Formats: sequence, C-alpha cells, structure tokens
Amino acid sequence: MNSDGKQALNAALAPYLNQIEDSLQNLSLDDHIPLFYDPIRYFLDIPGKRIRPLLLLLTAEALGQKTETALPAALAVELLHNFTLVHDDIMDNDDTRRGHLTIHKKWDIATAILAGDGLMGLAFQSLLQTPVPDVATMARRFTDTMLIVCEGQGLDKMFETEPIVQPPRYLDMISRKTAVLLELSCELGAITAGVSQETISNMRRFGYALGMGFQIQDDVLDITGDSQTLGKNIGSDLQMHKQTILTIELQKQYPDTVIFDLSVSEFVALLKESGILLKVQDMYRNHFETAFEILNGLPDNPAKKHLQVLSRFIQNRNW
Amino acid sequence: MNSDGKQALNAALAPYLNQIEDSLQNLSLDDHIPLFYDPIRYFLDIPGKRIRPLLLLLTAEALGQKTETALPAALAVELLHNFTLVHDDIMDNDDTRRGHLTIHKKWDIATAILAGDGLMGLAFQSLLQTPVPDVATMARRFTDTMLIVCEGQGLDKMFETEPIVQPPRYLDMISRKTAVLLELSCELGAITAGVSQETISNMRRFGYALGMGFQIQDDVLDITGDSQTLGKNIGSDLQMHKQTILTIELQKQYPDTVIFDLSVSEFVALLKESGILLKVQDMYRNHFETAFEILNGLPDNPAKKHLQVLSRFIQNRNW
Repeated sequence: MNSDGKQALNAALAPYLNQIEDSLQNLSLDDHIPLFYDPIRYFLDIPGKRIRPLLLLLTAEALGQKTETALPAALAVELLHNFTLVHDDIMDNDDTRRGHLTIHKKWDIATAILAGDGLMGLAFQSLLQTPVPDVATMARRFTDTMLIVCEGQGLDKMFETEPIVQPPRYLDMISRKTAVLLELSCELGAITAGVSQETISNMRRFGYALGMGFQIQDDVLDITGDSQTLGKNIGSDLQMHKQTILTIELQKQYPDTVIFDLSVSEFVALLKESGILLKVQDMYRNHFETAFEILNGLPDNPAKKHLQVLSRFIQNRNW
Repeated sequence: MNSDGKQALNAALAPYLNQIEDSLQNLSLDDHIPLFYDPIRYFLDIPGKRIRPLLLLLTAEALGQKTETALPAALAVELLHNFTLVHDDIMDNDDTRRGHLTIHKKWDIATAILAGDGLMGLAFQSLLQTPVPDVATMARRFTDTMLIVCEGQGLDKMFETEPIVQPPRYLDMISRKTAVLLELSCELGAITAGVSQETISNMRRFGYALGMGFQIQDDVLDITGDSQTLGKNIGSDLQMHKQTILTIELQKQYPDTVIFDLSVSEFVALLKESGILLKVQDMYRNHFETAFEILNGLPDNPAKKHLQVLSRFIQNRNW
C-alpha cells in the first residue's frame, strides 16, 4: 500500500479507532493499587493496530448494529489479546514488544503475571457489559476461545522440544494461537447484531480465514518481504531457528537435511525448486480468497466497505 | 475438634465432597496437549478441603436448590481458587503447596503461568454452564471478584516493601485476598436458588464474615495454636518476618520498636500486656458471631445444619 492508501485507510477507520482508544483510556483502574494497575495502563498505552476490536465493530455495523452497542465486546477482545501478549512475553522471555520494554523486563515476572491476570479479568468484565440479550452465549464463546488460545500456546511450547512437527499440527497450532481470536471477534460482532445463525457462522469463517491467511503469510514474508517494511532482516526466522510452515514443509520433503544449517539463500533456493514456496503461497491466498468471498456476499453498506479496506490492509501487511 | 467430631463432619459432608471430587475428575482436559493439561490435572489432584465449593453447594441446598444445579458454579469457585494458588505460588516463590511440589518447581515458570491461565478459563467455562436464568449476573459477580482477588495480591506484594502498614489497609488486603471468595461462594449458591435480593445479600455477608474470621484467626493461631495441628512452629510468621494483623497492630502502638527483632516470647508477652491479643481475638470472634447469627436466621433444614457444621469446622481449624 502506498502512502495515499495508508491515508485513505486511516481516514476510513479513524472514527472506529477513536472509539476503541477512548474506551481503553476510560477503563477505570483503581489508582490506590499502582503495583497492579500501573503495568496494565503502561501496556495498554503502547500503540497497537487494534485489528481485533476493529473487526468486531465493523462486523457489527455491517450487519446493522450500532458500534456503541458492540463497543464493550470490542474492548474485551483487545484486552484478551493483550492478556495473551503479556503472559506469552514472559514465557518466551521477550525483552520488547512493539518497541517498548515488556512488563516483566520493566517490572518483574510476578508483576507481569498479575498484570496479565488483571487484563483477563477486565476483558470478561467489559464483555459482560455488552447490552444485548445473548451476552451469556457471547461469554461462553469468549471463554472457549480463551482456552483454545492457551492450548495453542501450550502446543507452541511443546514444539520447541520436538525435532519434527508435521504440517497439520503446525497449522492447528497457529489456528489456535491466532486465527480463533479473529474468528471470535467477527462472531461476537455478528451476535451483537442479532443476525441469523447462518450469518454468524459465515462471519466466523470470514474471521478464521483472515487469521489463517495473515499467519501463514507472516511466515512467508520472512523471506519474500521487504526488510524495511517488516522491521527485521530477511530470513531472521530461519536464523533464530524458529519453526515456520516453510521449515516444516521443507523438513517433511527433505527429511535428511538439517534445515537450520542452511544459509538464507540456500533455504530460499530450496523452497523455490521444491515447489514449497508456491504451495505455501497458495495456502494463504486461498484463505484470503475465502475471506473476500464471504465479505462480498454481505449487503452493501459503508461498514462493509470499511471491512474490505481493513481486510486488504491485513492482507498487504505494511501499515 | 476431637476425632469423633471429625468423623461426624466427614460423614455429613461426604456426599457433597464426592460430588465435587467427581466433577473435578470429570473435567475434560484434552490429552493431546499434555504440557498444558498435565500440570492442571496434577494440581487439581492434590487433596484439598474444598471449602468454597462446599459453601456454595450447601448454601444452594439450604435455600431450596438441588446441588446438581449448583454444581457447575461450585466447581467454578474451586477452579478460581486454584488459579490464584498456582499464580501466587510463582509470585511468592513457594516450593510446595499442601505437601506437594508447586507447578513452577515440578515443571517451570512458563508452564505454571499457562496452567493458571487454563484454570481461570476452565473456571469461567464451568460457571457459564450453570443451568439457571441469571447466569450472566453470576458471571459478572464472578469476574468482579476475580479482579478484587488480583487487587488483594497486588496490595500484598506492595506491603512487602512498605515499612509501615496501617491496620485498616491490612484488613482491606486480607478481605480482598480471602474473604471475597467465600462471600462469592455463598452469593452464587443463593443466586442459583433464585431467592430474594435480601437473602442473597445476607448470604454474602455470611460468607464474608466467615472469611474475615478465618483469616484474622489464622494470624493469631500462629502464636496461640498447637504446633502439631498447625503443622508449623509457634511464631513461624514472626520468624519469617511476615506482616500479620498482630505485627501491624503492635507496630502502630509501639512505633519505636523493631517488631521483627523481638523473640517469640517477647512478642507474645507484648501482645498480651498491650491488650492487642484480646483486641484481635475480639475481631475474629465478632466476625464468626455475625456469621452464625445470619445462619441461625435461615429456615431449619438438613443443609442448614451441614452449613453450621462446616462453619464450626472453619472456626475451629483443626481438620
């Protein structure tokens, strides 16, 4: 996307982003317990793209609901996402997040555990304030998804000590860690709009496809992307010995090769000559295609257009 | 309580305990993700007194509800309690819990964080299965309480680095860390029974008073209890430089004394001569009295008797 495209995106989404940022700012965090609430405020103030709450608000509006009604649920998915980031950062021992110190580095592990727990509690609290009749159903779906995300993190940690992971298990893991939360965002947006089960199910599939496309593409961009846009070197996943769909597919096809011993250029050459690069590119393109087909089937309205803009942005990844 | 008393207690509560243990055993934990679910199963299998779910089931039954209906909520408060234990054990760097290795010692910190998160998710999942119309209200109260418990843990950690804590702030901290969860258990039991707001409010006050009595008495038993029953030496809180209501009241009355420099016998002598021991004993006795007054006001039935037995046990603390 060129800078004109970015400006158009920002202009279209600004009112929604403002609603989200305002409600994050307005969260009441008791200032008598700074050890608990200061790290939460610090983390929420780190600028983020707010993709999940945007998806939720736009889905709700595209299906006829007011964004104000969907806002508590939108805030809830953002808080849930932040809960996973804070705890994952401890587990993965990451020092920074979006250019800022992680909570366990700025404070300590105990404080970061508690902050993550607090974000989870605030997420449920916000969700349960959604003024729609079906809030218990929303809470059940929210809880099930939270557990699936934890399962995904468990699988991810397990894979770190497994020499060979088969592609379906890897895809299962990323679907749990990433896609289900985008799926949930769209589903909750649809539920707040009080639409049919069929439409809810379609919006779930839309969010899921978008999430899978996003995550698989993320693995590929590490070798095909622009290092300046990505903010990291080409091939950095390989150099950090990080398993991705590319290393896993290659390992399956060349069981005798030690993938992490390859140079970046050898790795790329092998991905091209084996056909794996094309195969994986087809994977994420198919997911994006599914997502856009579902979107196109919605009745035309401004929110649908915004949802298309946001989806294109997620597909193009250079915001 | 003598051993006859214990047997009577066990006989009266056995059917309820069996329901709770069975439902803990029947929790479906996906065996394909052992890194996530094995530690959860391990922790839930450590024998516990299950006071919170017992309170919930007995309150529900005393007010006319079937225990089967209240069981998902009972399981939820036990899971919530276990979530706090797993994360608190990491934060407090405790090696054992009820004679078993803590999860972060048996596995590692990352695994224990994830297990705690999972327990939290399972707690909400169970709560939301309670087959009563007002499940959303129950979920709101559950969430608010979970946040208050986290706040209590935050205050507790803050106090570790504060030289002087005033008694009201200490009492506020223990009310958040302990009493509110007993309060919630009784409240949710009452809500499942569909009783009036007045009765719900009474049962809240009952649970809260029981919790405050329990926790304040816990501080006092450290110097007045029987070391064999307590399973620790008399004065061990003092020797570990742990702030309790006794050290805090004493510090307030003798601002120039370094409390933790006192021997156990000097500490006890000062507590007696200052009148603080009597004052604090009055505190917890008043809480227990409040609890029993509320209980006595309930209509007579077998579950009410069981609730009285359980409350006496909590008051006598030697099970």
